[in-house]
Amino acid sequence: MTAQISPFYAIGISRLAHRLKEEGRSIIHMEFGQPSTGAPAKAIEAAHHVLDHDGMGYWESNALKQRIATHYDEAYGVHVDPEQIILTCGASPAFVLALSCLFAPGARVAIARPGYVAYRNTVRALHMEPLEVPCGSAERFQLTARALAAIDPAPDGVIIASPANPTGTIIDPDELAIIIAYCQERGIRVISDEIYHGLSYGASARSALQEDAGVLVVNSFSKYYSMAGWRLGWLVVPPDLIDAARARMGNLFLTPPSLAQHAGLVAFQCRDELEGHVATYARNRDLMLDALPSLGLDRIAPPDGAFYIYADIGHLTDDSIAFCTRLLQDTGVATAPGVDFDPVDGHRFMRFSFAVSTTEVEDAIARMKPWFAAQPRRSD
Amino acid sequence: MTAQISPFYAIGISRLAHRLKEEGRSIIHMEFGQPSTGAPAKAIEAAHHVLDHDGMGYWESNALKQRIATHYDEAYGVHVDPEQIILTCGASPAFVLALSCLFAPGARVAIARPGYVAYRNTVRALHMEPLEVPCGSAERFQLTARALAAIDPAPDGVIIASPANPTGTIIDPDELAIIIAYCQERGIRVISDEIYHGLSYGASARSALQEDAGVLVVNSFSKYYSMAGWRLGWLVVPPDLIDAARARMGNLFLTPPSLAQHAGLVAFQCRDELEGHVATYARNRDLMLDALPSLGLDRIAPPDGAFYIYADIGHLTDDSIAFCTRLLQDTGVATAPGVDFDPVDGHRFMRFSFAVSTTEVEDAIARMKPWFAAQPRRSD
Repeated sequence: MTAQISPFYAIGISRLAHRLKEEGRSIIHMEFGQPSTGAPAKAIEAAHHVLDHDGMGYWESNALKQRIATHYDEAYGVHVDPEQIILTCGASPAFVLALSCLFAPGARVAIARPGYVAYRNTVRALHMEPLEVPCGSAERFQLTARALAAIDPAPDGVIIASPANPTGTIIDPDELAIIIAYCQERGIRVISDEIYHGLSYGASARSALQEDAGVLVVNSFSKYYSMAGWRLGWLVVPPDLIDAARARMGNLFLTPPSLAQHAGLVAFQCRDELEGHVATYARNRDLMLDALPSLGLDRIAPPDGAFYIYADIGHLTDDSIAFCTRLLQDTGVATAPGVDFDPVDGHRFMRFSFAVSTTEVEDAIARMKPWFAAQPRRSD
Repeated sequence: MTAQISPFYAIGISRLAHRLKEEGRSIIHMEFGQPSTGAPAKAIEAAHHVLDHDGMGYWESNALKQRIATHYDEAYGVHVDPEQIILTCGASPAFVLALSCLFAPGARVAIARPGYVAYRNTVRALHMEPLEVPCGSAERFQLTARALAAIDPAPDGVIIASPANPTGTIIDPDELAIIIAYCQERGIRVISDEIYHGLSYGASARSALQEDAGVLVVNSFSKYYSMAGWRLGWLVVPPDLIDAARARMGNLFLTPPSLAQHAGLVAFQCRDELEGHVATYARNRDLMLDALPSLGLDRIAPPDGAFYIYADIGHLTDDSIAFCTRLLQDTGVATAPGVDFDPVDGHRFMRFSFAVSTTEVEDAIARMKPWFAAQPRRSD
């Protein structure tokens, strides 16, 4: 039987949002985790030059792999050989590569619930078994070594994410060390999703590579580097998996977009501009955290990083898709229903992305306040 | 056990070619099937505009899906709903989507041998079983209904390719109709690789959709549209598979590159420029077909389309990788070893891509003539 994959419901919300916009409605896009800022100016400048001077065939940038390797040295103090970097068409296919290199059908892969929808669905599409570990607000929605150890028999692999989607929480450094040590001890392979690194509002997130050179790390230019639609990401594999990962990349995906690779290399020189975006997200986060209680949304875990707030709306609905759809239709504010992240409890959660302009966050709050005030409380 | 995937050996040749180029050597790239011409001028112009005016978030172009649907009407007289078009990051991931939508691990998928390396490896990476059907020069290296019918038990699926890689041969229209009818009758799902459509030197290739609305078709902007490094392709699925394909696209890949979608839409307006490239390939093909006998390469099937010649070099070597490597080192002409396309007999074949300029083809021939003349014949 072919794998049964649920749709990504936020895509449905987004399509409705675009339809409403075409009808002339004012829409605020808080449904996807994508910066509205666009690529850094110098990266765009480089892209213009490449467009005029390069035929853009199938190509893999050695310079970019080297620059990314240097980044691991600079940001985390870990040595990574450029050959360990597999450039991909965004983070999504990097997970396909990672899972395919590590596991066969039937493998059991632990993931946090709530968690990014594609973990569950990609694991399933590859006919592996996602083991969803319920992570509540007490654990700030994150996996713990204790929760992992309770899985019997031990899983073959685990996907960790810090900062996480949909909650923005970061795994405490001590806990991260314990998780990785436990996985090493039990032979559990670790895939660490570090796509939100660079976006944090207190201490920076540590890379799992700082704990263990044997983990696989997924990252991308879509978030911190503000280049979502350019489709460029990377996978770091340990030396023994380089051949397997390269063979899969060449056959399943061939090469990442040439222009994005040129521009991505330049994006590493644009720290000032990118840190400006982080400052904007920090302001947006403060505005949202201030406003949410007045919307009646006080059961949240304040995000340590990323640009999301995952809010409990169980007092208002038990159908987050219908709720988010109504919110969009009534106010033009597009958000993501919790069911994308948690098939069990997500019907009473929603996710806001605050990777928009501060003006849009203010506007969204102003539109949502009266709307939330008018929503009847559910009688249980 | 994880899937054992062979590398794409032409990538190794290409890396060596680039290294030699960095050392100052003059290299002619005939190892990959990629046009050297770059995207159409108007598409590049559009890309410049988009770079300056669009934030490029995750995005899927409805206009492009509609234009592609119109193309099926114009080019083949078949009706395709825009919703049946899944835009992908090139043709390679379109095969991942197609196979994943249709089959589960263990499924048996027939493919021609020789054939494009990624068919075999992608089928294997998804833990399905490639059934390689030997197709010799008598069948012009193409699958026939007769060869398919000889597979017992009948396969779950088949990948057909016309024009084919590495041979450029087109399946005869009558034979195509018989193949599709046989597959319909036996419930064998068909994936038709039509990536080389538009590139033919006699009659155009028919789409498998002209025979049966239930087939899946893979195509891309990398060949006729000369936009390989832009990473944009598409998959046509029958209506009953739209939801499954969309769910996989959203989870495994998310969206194709935004800029490529904008430029790809404009590329449909650039027929004059693109037909100019086809005229160049036709000249290059003639030059190659004229020259190959004087290189001692007379066992070939003249290509009906694409931009490849697959040549038997069994009188000179039984190790096509070593042979292509020596040819590159000695003359600077990069080619693809037959083992990429045929793990059984490919050690005595090589593939030339003539998607380069006519001057380069002339130069390559001039370099290869003395080199081939100096090669000792194998004593068997």
